[in-house]
Amino acid sequence: MRPYVIVNVAVSADGKLSTRERRQVKISGSQDFERVDTLKAGCDAIMVGIGTVLADDPSLTIKSPDHIAERTRQGKPEHPVRIVVDSHARTPPDAKILHKGSGKRIVAVSEAAPTERMQNLKSLSDVIVAGKKQVDLTYFLHKLAEEGITRLMVEGGGTLIWGLISEGLVDELFMFVGNIIIGGYNAPTLAEGPGFIKESDFPTLKLIGTSIIEEGVLIHWKMGD
Amino acid sequence: MRPYVIVNVAVSADGKLSTRERRQVKISGSQDFERVDTLKAGCDAIMVGIGTVLADDPSLTIKSPDHIAERTRQGKPEHPVRIVVDSHARTPPDAKILHKGSGKRIVAVSEAAPTERMQNLKSLSDVIVAGKKQVDLTYFLHKLAEEGITRLMVEGGGTLIWGLISEGLVDELFMFVGNIIIGGYNAPTLAEGPGFIKESDFPTLKLIGTSIIEEGVLIHWKMGD
Repeated sequence: MRPYVIVNVAVSADGKLSTRERRQVKISGSQDFERVDTLKAGCDAIMVGIGTVLADDPSLTIKSPDHIAERTRQGKPEHPVRIVVDSHARTPPDAKILHKGSGKRIVAVSEAAPTERMQNLKSLSDVIVAGKKQVDLTYFLHKLAEEGITRLMVEGGGTLIWGLISEGLVDELFMFVGNIIIGGYNAPTLAEGPGFIKESDFPTLKLIGTSIIEEGVLIHWKMGD
Repeated sequence: MRPYVIVNVAVSADGKLSTRERRQVKISGSQDFERVDTLKAGCDAIMVGIGTVLADDPSLTIKSPDHIAERTRQGKPEHPVRIVVDSHARTPPDAKILHKGSGKRIVAVSEAAPTERMQNLKSLSDVIVAGKKQVDLTYFLHKLAEEGITRLMVEGGGTLIWGLISEGLVDELFMFVGNIIIGGYNAPTLAEGPGFIKESDFPTLKLIGTSIIEEGVLIHWKMGD
């Protein structure tokens, strides 16, 4: 048992999540922002990797008061659970994700995380230890299902998404392709990590549909079986 | 004066041109292959970078007998001029691009190319020297226009495309997004090189349209002004 996993990212026309310096850049506009906020509001939890926390310091909260009101009417917490995959407990104690908005946070760490940093995080968030040197994503998602999380959205970065895809833990992928070129052999993409070598190992996707949103294209994929 | 430049590439859903080993992989199917062959047949020349020659050994010839016949009827050579951007004259003398199909080839080299390798290439191809250490793309495209090339298609790789985009030498971009994940922080993408850092430097594109081709999505962009 694991949650249903939806990856949502915005990339430049050349497939980059940000610049080589990992600085967050505006790729999509307000219309796509609303789509993402709606998608978030329909999930039990939103997850990012530690790289994204360090680079962008996102809060991962719902922005629309309407969505928050609707969640409240449904007896849900205002915001989905916010989750960081952070093998070495590097989440800064003042990270927005730990402070902005009400509700639960979970930081997933590995057994290799320094005890002191882990203890500090425990005063600000739930901490789940999963895996020896790196977070064991399969095990961690199993733990999240046990906590009642059935629908999980992943917002990046490329290393976490690679980890999830390579372990067969992704169900759907929304990719907004924006109308800019960022360039750079070192700029991060949707799926980082070592990558696949053999064609027989490539996961295949099924196209659900495309739509034009402002100046870009949204591609909606379902992961193949 | 320079030719009108059309970039055409196929990328995986995660934006990769190939694996980290630069091994060519099948991203698109026969329907997209025909689209590309038609696009090629409408151009005066097809250009690739030396990395693509070394990795894939393409011939860059037109495949459809109908297109070849039509070009002949129009008084054009059977195949567009085949061009390699190859700063250090590393094109292997037995590369398919120098032998397969009738017609003209051009290898662009820099002044830093070893004389012997350049001399060897001269027996198999036209050689144009442009730039000191690397091929000066702006100058080289100007030379191509002087040779009567008005419509140039570029098939990769990411380093050449980066060079062209960063010098403002691209007019149109066709990107077929295939239904596979390749992954890898080291796998090549549409625009390699150092990449842009400042948002004000990002080239912007205008969406011409999208179409679903077999299992993937073709995105057609025009470079902004």
